[in-house]
Amino acid sequence: MKLSHIGEFGLIQRFKKHIKLDSTVIKGSGDDCAVIKRDKSTYMLYTCDMIIEGVDFKPKEDPYLIGRKAIAVSISDIAACAGLPRYAVVSMGLPKNTSLTKVDRISRGIFDLAKEFNINIVGGDLSRSQRIVIDVSMLGVVDKKALVLRSGAKPGDLVFVTGRLGGSIHGRHLKFTPRIKEAQYLVRNYKINSMIDISDGFMQDLRHICEESKVGAVVFEKLIPLDKDAASLNEALFMGEDFELIFTMPRKEAARLLKNTRGKFHLAAQIVDKKYGLKFENKKEPISGRNLGFNHF
Amino acid sequence: MKLSHIGEFGLIQRFKKHIKLDSTVIKGSGDDCAVIKRDKSTYMLYTCDMIIEGVDFKPKEDPYLIGRKAIAVSISDIAACAGLPRYAVVSMGLPKNTSLTKVDRISRGIFDLAKEFNINIVGGDLSRSQRIVIDVSMLGVVDKKALVLRSGAKPGDLVFVTGRLGGSIHGRHLKFTPRIKEAQYLVRNYKINSMIDISDGFMQDLRHICEESKVGAVVFEKLIPLDKDAASLNEALFMGEDFELIFTMPRKEAARLLKNTRGKFHLAAQIVDKKYGLKFENKKEPISGRNLGFNHF
Repeated sequence: MKLSHIGEFGLIQRFKKHIKLDSTVIKGSGDDCAVIKRDKSTYMLYTCDMIIEGVDFKPKEDPYLIGRKAIAVSISDIAACAGLPRYAVVSMGLPKNTSLTKVDRISRGIFDLAKEFNINIVGGDLSRSQRIVIDVSMLGVVDKKALVLRSGAKPGDLVFVTGRLGGSIHGRHLKFTPRIKEAQYLVRNYKINSMIDISDGFMQDLRHICEESKVGAVVFEKLIPLDKDAASLNEALFMGEDFELIFTMPRKEAARLLKNTRGKFHLAAQIVDKKYGLKFENKKEPISGRNLGFNHF
Repeated sequence: MKLSHIGEFGLIQRFKKHIKLDSTVIKGSGDDCAVIKRDKSTYMLYTCDMIIEGVDFKPKEDPYLIGRKAIAVSISDIAACAGLPRYAVVSMGLPKNTSLTKVDRISRGIFDLAKEFNINIVGGDLSRSQRIVIDVSMLGVVDKKALVLRSGAKPGDLVFVTGRLGGSIHGRHLKFTPRIKEAQYLVRNYKINSMIDISDGFMQDLRHICEESKVGAVVFEKLIPLDKDAASLNEALFMGEDFELIFTMPRKEAARLLKNTRGKFHLAAQIVDKKYGLKFENKKEPISGRNLGFNHF
């Protein structure tokens, strides 16, 4: 049997069975970050993301933006757990004939974003490869009280996104701003029940929240905020790498949020009982679990 | 200018200039692990290593051993700083047509070694790639008092290795045991001034100790312990991936070590003043800095 048969998520499920964790691990794989005990008031967040030439960016792309994306995706994971990024190590595979100018541009993209978010780049590994591959692993810190996972959504919660969706493939996947600031504002001022960043696509990532929270969701198609570059609603719903955050909160909190922040956060769905599955408003049939968004295999 | 012109170590130097670290970072890049403040009595160690098909292992290699190597190299980095490995995240790039059996074997190799060393695999990332690429990032813990870096070697120190050298290319680079146990024994019972693991080759890695400690070294060619698979002394001196530890300690401590552990650790060199450079015993000329061992570019 080939990898493509069970897909990325099947493979992850397959791995999880074999992993044993000790009591210092609050949350292993299956969320945006792993959560590990740290001290009385904080947890450590730990994540990694690999980007590969020809899959996650085109060979001709601006090297600065390649480096920027390599680190931005991990910062976005930390944001999704409501943490602050602190340390990172960077592994890079580069073709032997890569020009120094290109390497400098890539690393500049990494260092600049690290600086912007106060991240210490504390180490790395360099290797020879046929195509450019960059893996960033990142450590963050989150107040115990502020931690938000995918698993806390409750029926009745309203579902919001931090920005407009779609159009990532037209360039925004290389230039997005990780939503650290927004996540900090949200957890400091409201009760947020669950959160995830959109890497696989709005529908796929909302499904991740539904699965981890054991709930269903009704998507308000007409309210989905389209990015100016989005070619269609389908792009906004199903295409990966918007890197906005999806978050859910109780109705009362939502009313307060909408009043305080007019237009900044976009209502997109409502959490319902698990038995209703994941569906569009005014459609009876739940959406099948397959092909909701990007899958690597 | 091409990457191959300045090489892996030149590139690392180039990066280091642009990196700013805050006061929680005890040691950034330039050692086997980064060292970060943790609590009153311990530091956190942080490292990453990427292995790539066709560079670090052959396509036809046993997938179990590929997975095993991917995690073993990071454990070896933690050992070199005298720490204990605790957590890891694993990024994997896999060709679309990879068989499930192969993926299972790779992950089994990772999980088995993780279990043996009590490491929590807390997350990962899966991506599509042309060739197999695995990046493991690892967190460890070390007692402040036990921490050993590359930079502590002193003139007069004797230099030891934890095992026989050479022959790694004949298979041992896939099957080595990271020297966690040995490092723990050493730092608990002796004063160890500096330590490094042999990834680039004995001479190259001894040179890293010399540079970081601002000392020279005289290598006792005739004492270099050859592995049974080593084809030549040159292989033992210059070939990478033995993954034994090189460590240095004061003479008195060395005498005690030799008495207590007869034959387990091998005397290989002596630290001298920086002005003598790095040289072989009975040779007047110091060995030039270039081409001492493995360089990826």
